Amino acid sequence: MGNLMRALEFSRAEIGRVLKGGDRALDATCGNGKDTLFLAGCVGPEGRVFAVDIQKRAVEETEKLLASHGLAGRVTVLQRSHEELLDFVPPPLQAAMFNLGYLPGGDHGVVTRPESTVKALEAVFSLLVPGGLVSVVAYSGHPGGQAEVEEVQEYLEGLEQGGHSVLHYRFINQANHPPQLFLIEKL
Amino acid sequence: MGNLMRALEFSRAEIGRVLKGGDRALDATCGNGKDTLFLAGCVGPEGRVFAVDIQKRAVEETEKLLASHGLAGRVTVLQRSHEELLDFVPPPLQAAMFNLGYLPGGDHGVVTRPESTVKALEAVFSLLVPGGLVSVVAYSGHPGGQAEVEEVQEYLEGLEQGGHSVLHYRFINQANHPPQLFLIEKL
Repeated sequence: MGNLMRALEFSRAEIGRVLKGGDRALDATCGNGKDTLFLAGCVGPEGRVFAVDIQKRAVEETEKLLASHGLAGRVTVLQRSHEELLDFVPPPLQAAMFNLGYLPGGDHGVVTRPESTVKALEAVFSLLVPGGLVSVVAYSGHPGGQAEVEEVQEYLEGLEQGGHSVLHYRFINQANHPPQLFLIEKL
Repeated sequence: MGNLMRALEFSRAEIGRVLKGGDRALDATCGNGKDTLFLAGCVGPEGRVFAVDIQKRAVEETEKLLASHGLAGRVTVLQRSHEELLDFVPPPLQAAMFNLGYLPGGDHGVVTRPESTVKALEAVFSLLVPGGLVSVVAYSGHPGGQAEVEEVQEYLEGLEQGGHSVLHYRFINQANHPPQLFLIEKL
């Protein structure tokens, strides 16, 4: 695939540029825990990461991965819907990551839905500090995926430019629906 | 505008990652010479840059800018149409930059046209080494600009994915038509 950064790779590069030791970050869809592990590394021993997933299996996988890296102590893993973020994640946040679609290796019937994704994004924006960054990696290949990408994009396009800066990063000549990235900075 | 890299800034960051001392690069629309100067810095004293513009004023501005930085010796500046690139730029190239639209401060009636841009892109791809990178910064705010963006995008979307990887990088919630970037890597 060459030297240009894939969507997931670029999201981590940019989130990693923003996060400093002692910061607070959220993995809004922890899935197999890889983004949570990345965030836990970024915020260091004085930082805190919140990792959320609606599926029990995702929470267990994430806890296992963190424990195997000795990083469980800096992460709060919660089996909750990210729609209810404000009930259990206190401000401030410096960064948040979303990975839409279904859990790899899990139940493909359990997917993120645009309504709840948009609701969770609104909640995250209210927790974010100025200069804070949110990444949304979205997939259009599974049933409902393209509609979700379009609804999320429409919502993000409508954000007032004085409040947020929204970057869309995607490869446009690939046949197999590669993931695409939205990066939102709170101004 | 925050911490996320603007289109032009990101194009230079990625071109700068690819170019090494001794490489050969092309500024296909040298305009005021700023990209040419950037490329001349990247390729070092052993490298070579070709800078092309159809307008006399652009060529003069570019030569002046290079001279003021003592870098004229590593750049060939040519007042030609980039449609005829193959007549005066020999292979190989490691990178090329396009900046579409009109010359800032110049005649706004003289703009790049999609047919000649696509022809120049085809020529550049034939000169590029594998791993080489082409940036196209495109503007949709001037008359004909949006049509040019769409034609260039359609051409790039049609490139076979085994031969090139095409990234589209743009801000989607800005009112004032910010420039958008296409980055093409030859595989």
